[in-house]
Amino acid sequence: MPARAETLRRYRRACDYLAAAMIHLKDNVLLTEPLRPEHLKPRPLGHWGTCPGLTLVYAGLNRLVAETGQRTLLVTGPGHGAPAIHANLWLEGTHAVHDPRLGLDGHGLAELVRRFSWPGGFPSHLSPEVPGVIHEGGELGYALATAFGAALDDPGLLVACVVGDGEAETGPTAAAWHSPKFTGPGDGRVLPILHLNGYKIASPTIYEAMSDDELTAYFTGCGWHPEIVDVRGTDDPDTPLAEALARAHEQPSGPPPMIVLRSTKGLGLPATSPDGTPLAGTFHAHQVPLPSAAGDPDELAALERWLRSYRPEELFGADGVPAPDLLEVPPAPELRLGRVPQANGGQLRRDLPLPDVEKYAVAVDRPGGVDASAPEVLAGWLAELIGRAPETFRVVCPDELESNKLGGLLEATSRQFDAEVPGYSEHLATRGRVQEVLSEHLCQGWLQGYLLTGRHGLFPCYEAFVSIVDSMVNQYAKFLKMSAEVSWRAPVASLNYLLSSDGWRQEHNGYSHQGPGFINQMLTKKATTARVYLPPDANTLLEVMHRCLASTDLINVVVTGKQSSPQWLSPEEARAHCRAGASVWEWASTADGDADVVLACAGTTPTLETIAAAELLRELAPDLRVRVVNVVDLLSLCPPDRHPHGLADEAFTACFGDDLPVVFAFHGYPSAVHEVLHGRPATARFHVHGYREEGTTTTPFDLLASNRMTRHDLAADAVTRARGWASAGGDLARELVKRRDALLVQSYRDGQDPEEITGWRWRG
Amino acid sequence: MPARAETLRRYRRACDYLAAAMIHLKDNVLLTEPLRPEHLKPRPLGHWGTCPGLTLVYAGLNRLVAETGQRTLLVTGPGHGAPAIHANLWLEGTHAVHDPRLGLDGHGLAELVRRFSWPGGFPSHLSPEVPGVIHEGGELGYALATAFGAALDDPGLLVACVVGDGEAETGPTAAAWHSPKFTGPGDGRVLPILHLNGYKIASPTIYEAMSDDELTAYFTGCGWHPEIVDVRGTDDPDTPLAEALARAHEQPSGPPPMIVLRSTKGLGLPATSPDGTPLAGTFHAHQVPLPSAAGDPDELAALERWLRSYRPEELFGADGVPAPDLLEVPPAPELRLGRVPQANGGQLRRDLPLPDVEKYAVAVDRPGGVDASAPEVLAGWLAELIGRAPETFRVVCPDELESNKLGGLLEATSRQFDAEVPGYSEHLATRGRVQEVLSEHLCQGWLQGYLLTGRHGLFPCYEAFVSIVDSMVNQYAKFLKMSAEVSWRAPVASLNYLLSSDGWRQEHNGYSHQGPGFINQMLTKKATTARVYLPPDANTLLEVMHRCLASTDLINVVVTGKQSSPQWLSPEEARAHCRAGASVWEWASTADGDADVVLACAGTTPTLETIAAAELLRELAPDLRVRVVNVVDLLSLCPPDRHPHGLADEAFTACFGDDLPVVFAFHGYPSAVHEVLHGRPATARFHVHGYREEGTTTTPFDLLASNRMTRHDLAADAVTRARGWASAGGDLARELVKRRDALLVQSYRDGQDPEEITGWRWRG
Repeated sequence: MPARAETLRRYRRACDYLAAAMIHLKDNVLLTEPLRPEHLKPRPLGHWGTCPGLTLVYAGLNRLVAETGQRTLLVTGPGHGAPAIHANLWLEGTHAVHDPRLGLDGHGLAELVRRFSWPGGFPSHLSPEVPGVIHEGGELGYALATAFGAALDDPGLLVACVVGDGEAETGPTAAAWHSPKFTGPGDGRVLPILHLNGYKIASPTIYEAMSDDELTAYFTGCGWHPEIVDVRGTDDPDTPLAEALARAHEQPSGPPPMIVLRSTKGLGLPATSPDGTPLAGTFHAHQVPLPSAAGDPDELAALERWLRSYRPEELFGADGVPAPDLLEVPPAPELRLGRVPQANGGQLRRDLPLPDVEKYAVAVDRPGGVDASAPEVLAGWLAELIGRAPETFRVVCPDELESNKLGGLLEATSRQFDAEVPGYSEHLATRGRVQEVLSEHLCQGWLQGYLLTGRHGLFPCYEAFVSIVDSMVNQYAKFLKMSAEVSWRAPVASLNYLLSSDGWRQEHNGYSHQGPGFINQMLTKKATTARVYLPPDANTLLEVMHRCLASTDLINVVVTGKQSSPQWLSPEEARAHCRAGASVWEWASTADGDADVVLACAGTTPTLETIAAAELLRELAPDLRVRVVNVVDLLSLCPPDRHPHGLADEAFTACFGDDLPVVFAFHGYPSAVHEVLHGRPATARFHVHGYREEGTTTTPFDLLASNRMTRHDLAADAVTRARGWASAGGDLARELVKRRDALLVQSYRDGQDPEEITGWRWRG
Repeated sequence: MPARAETLRRYRRACDYLAAAMIHLKDNVLLTEPLRPEHLKPRPLGHWGTCPGLTLVYAGLNRLVAETGQRTLLVTGPGHGAPAIHANLWLEGTHAVHDPRLGLDGHGLAELVRRFSWPGGFPSHLSPEVPGVIHEGGELGYALATAFGAALDDPGLLVACVVGDGEAETGPTAAAWHSPKFTGPGDGRVLPILHLNGYKIASPTIYEAMSDDELTAYFTGCGWHPEIVDVRGTDDPDTPLAEALARAHEQPSGPPPMIVLRSTKGLGLPATSPDGTPLAGTFHAHQVPLPSAAGDPDELAALERWLRSYRPEELFGADGVPAPDLLEVPPAPELRLGRVPQANGGQLRRDLPLPDVEKYAVAVDRPGGVDASAPEVLAGWLAELIGRAPETFRVVCPDELESNKLGGLLEATSRQFDAEVPGYSEHLATRGRVQEVLSEHLCQGWLQGYLLTGRHGLFPCYEAFVSIVDSMVNQYAKFLKMSAEVSWRAPVASLNYLLSSDGWRQEHNGYSHQGPGFINQMLTKKATTARVYLPPDANTLLEVMHRCLASTDLINVVVTGKQSSPQWLSPEEARAHCRAGASVWEWASTADGDADVVLACAGTTPTLETIAAAELLRELAPDLRVRVVNVVDLLSLCPPDRHPHGLADEAFTACFGDDLPVVFAFHGYPSAVHEVLHGRPATARFHVHGYREEGTTTTPFDLLASNRMTRHDLAADAVTRARGWASAGGDLARELVKRRDALLVQSYRDGQDPEEITGWRWRG
């Protein structure tokens, strides 16, 4: 065996020792004295099982990078294997770069071991606190898609991605194996390493149960060139892995290479614990292998034997300084896996060269005087942006770009697809700014990887189906929140959703396509992270998207209609309105100052209905003083101490008064409005109309009526709630409901929209 | 060509004609006169592209069933292909069974055509209104998992499952191809038919871009025996499909068969539309192929030519009655695909033989006098249930059964896994009541299929990761809601979640594992569907689970801690408390009737902290009259007009008074409590402590402290808010915060729980 191999073995022994120590020890970290209970962490925490395999991969990549100079980013799917990554980061000196207390000596070693899974220290899973990390891996499933996103538009980058065999069972991972079809010659390469060690928490895994033939067939079918590296039973796992990595790096023509690494779970552990539980090579090695050592002398002895089996005294000096040969394993400092700049993508981020919105704005001489499809207008602006930023901006979408009326984008770019397409197609190329796949998970994962490595993007999606990525958004919001607390992490571009196929106009696709719950989902996030905008027309959409694409570290959700509909605000008015977040629309109001009732609205369809309701009231109740308020920034309704966008008290009062009745037409579930209003004065006066979870395939008017959101419903509610209108309002409300029902009958009979039947337009 | 084949072709021509007519026509449905604009639906809605292929499959299955008598359930992934299914259901007479207006004559035919995608009629996608349907298919991805769930424990059943090539791109479908490894000899068979017609909405699909070799490799790797049936270009697609179906049905030994059906998208359409847009065999055939016919004479003529190409006059008599040979195609009535009893599983559902909970209840002599792990206690009861209902009850879980402390279940059954397992394993067998796969999507899909075919089940899951199935729950809630509105659908067993690895004790796994948002998700659902329980100890958990497993048509979410913790209620008290939903815990209160402040709580950890807070106040503020209220049924807080579980006003007042300050310790996000309280009197007096989205790997006490949920925080809040305590409370609150911080320092230094440090127990 060449010296090099022996050094690698020693290097791995050191890392494995450190990982085991991190899980168990708080003191006597080099076993300079006999192990006693007081040396142990009182609550040993961590996952050992995957650690030896992760270090095997890390060491192999070190060698590859050292030999080839290949700029390499590591994405670790099994984030619970954090101890292994920490050990490697410490030995390569990366930890010391960010924190001098983690230097390459005994103090640093003790600090590293103690800090792992310790209050105020390093979390038990990989997290933004850890250098080199762009993926948490606590909720399994997203490593591979993230890796592909990181590789886009960076042709010199290799993204090595470890996928655990537990994670491989998830749907998002299973879908992500097809990602190469959506990348092309302008992108970096992803080298997946499927790490099979046979077990998840308590059971064998699917992929372990597959034969080598089945594995080869499966991945060949996905378009990979798989190589199975089975290191179970070998004393020298480094050499076969190194050879496989070298072959993969040679970048042969044909299908891209991937590696299936079969290793022994928890390698290095004794075969059994003192009570006879099998350990090495079983799922019992998954977490803390010897959890009761503090109270069980036999287990303590077994732990000491296990730890001493790594012979730490051969690896570290008495002063804790690693032996010199170990320090020669990592590649040149700037190439070390923990220091690749892409892992702190905010440092690479440049502001997008956003075009001015003026050029694309709709000329609105008078409110409601012209119709437009807001996303169609936006598409023009985005097309110019794509021309200006051809390597730093991407659009991911579940094959809904055209359906979301953003097809205009495809004048400036193509859908990226790098596979033989036998038949007819449009706007398809091996290079392109758009990736369309019928998997919201892949869209989200790709975009996360792209953003976290310093680029920008947009995710247009059907409103109802964006909930498919609820849990990914949960985790991403956590990643952003923690990142902001890490001093050396720079802000990344925001994650931007455009939900333009909204439920109110999914009357044709029916009930499954009607679901505005993603707004509620966003409201569970920190105020530092979540933004929700509901631009009611094209000019407000332009303003909002400009703001979103210029922002950092946020998750912006923009909901707007896609149908051609009346435009309300001029570009200047739109700018002022978006800056305010919410404001009185005087031209739609009949109150001049004092009002009897406020008609508030948020969202394209509710805004149209509210303005129509105000007009109905102008005709039917000319004495009623109605104030119309539009809310474009939902979180402006929050009290300012709960959200930075919250309107100041005076601005809030200027819109809603202190005790005025408010009839609020809201795009989503009414609960979302109640939630943001919490803490505002006298919230019981807000009567929110919204989606009541009533729907089917029907007319848009029926959809409104069944959710009590027609103009008639809003007007009827306003007259019964308006100050001083308690008695007079009742008759009028009944009349309004009668009108609504007549239109409903007509719309059922003729299958047409009331808009089409009545030809209504706001006359102002 | 044998007569049989000619009949099948005529049958398909009839179905294709009807499907095309459904999308376009409202009158002149048999083209007995020249087509005029007024015959057209004003808003043509529907998806044509997949229809001819679906009918090809339906017809092929008809033949298989007729020839073999095989009881067969069809799960249609492309639910947007509803017109094809409706056509088949009408022709086989199933529609007429449920609605005499849909009889097999001209009136019925006209009604069918008109009713499709018409207000008040049939939705444009498959839905619970459609006989034979257990899967909606609007949000793509879940058909295959649903099919496997339907097949479980029904060895005589064949579940044919059409998977579209759009749907095949989703993660949940990609994961579901591995499902055979989790079924065994006691289960029915699933026959997947991957329907490749090349395109999703606007792009080619992944699977279309795979070569036959790649497809064969991929599915062979998954453990299938794939057969590719390419019917593009043949005049007789029925024969090769029939032969493949027959081979599949012969049930050869070895890998289970599946079919890859390559067909032409929108087959039957003209090659191009009058404006030159390519139609047949392209994505332009996906939805309405000729949408502008009403206003464009050329397109109207093209539509008429297309429709007449089916020669309806050869298929239907002048009276609209289908030709006799067509009526002979479907199998015997009871075997027709639309009538298989499993598709209306509620009719097959039998109440579970639930064991009495008494036998398993924890003896609680005095509150807090004994510790137990609630799920461990529950596992005993569930084990008896499994013994009593070995073929109608299943547990699905993402490999977290033992981690969720439900391992006791495995005394009564095994994990089902039907693949070679090379190494060590425990509790694994080809038959078993438990399926553990690291895919929440698969767990959910399997369970949905199982429940909708008349059986019962439980889904234990980590709380934070159940959000992975948010969107599946959205769609399932819609399915339940619509089903309840369909007269002939019988109630199915409820979908039950047990979330016992809750965030407050995921301090070791860290921030990614801390997320109670599923509760908020449930609150967006109809009051007829959603239930949320937070049992604080074992006896309440037993009561709640008994109730959930006896219920129908609900989605029950049960959140409880898994750690050993103090038990509060005797079995009798637990029963009364669960019946009430929320009640005053006198034994923990210091108020005797009138109170100065209410300490309310919901959830295992908040309940413990609240009781400890009450004790702190008993010591530090003996004059303060504290009332302790526990809420086990979250929706009992809703006003009774908003939710059937809402406490009557008097009961609500008995707990919370009318204007008493309430300090509420809640398990999840505070917004959930505010939301359910909406509409109750004076809600501004409720001060809710909960998860503020602060977390990491730390001590449980730190997790509480960083979210302001320790006993000290609750007590401090109580004394500052209690009536008449404004001034005195301030000093005491500062003292409490000081105590909290001292414990926090200690917990940081020693890495121990304050519980362990202080040895606190409630003394009462």
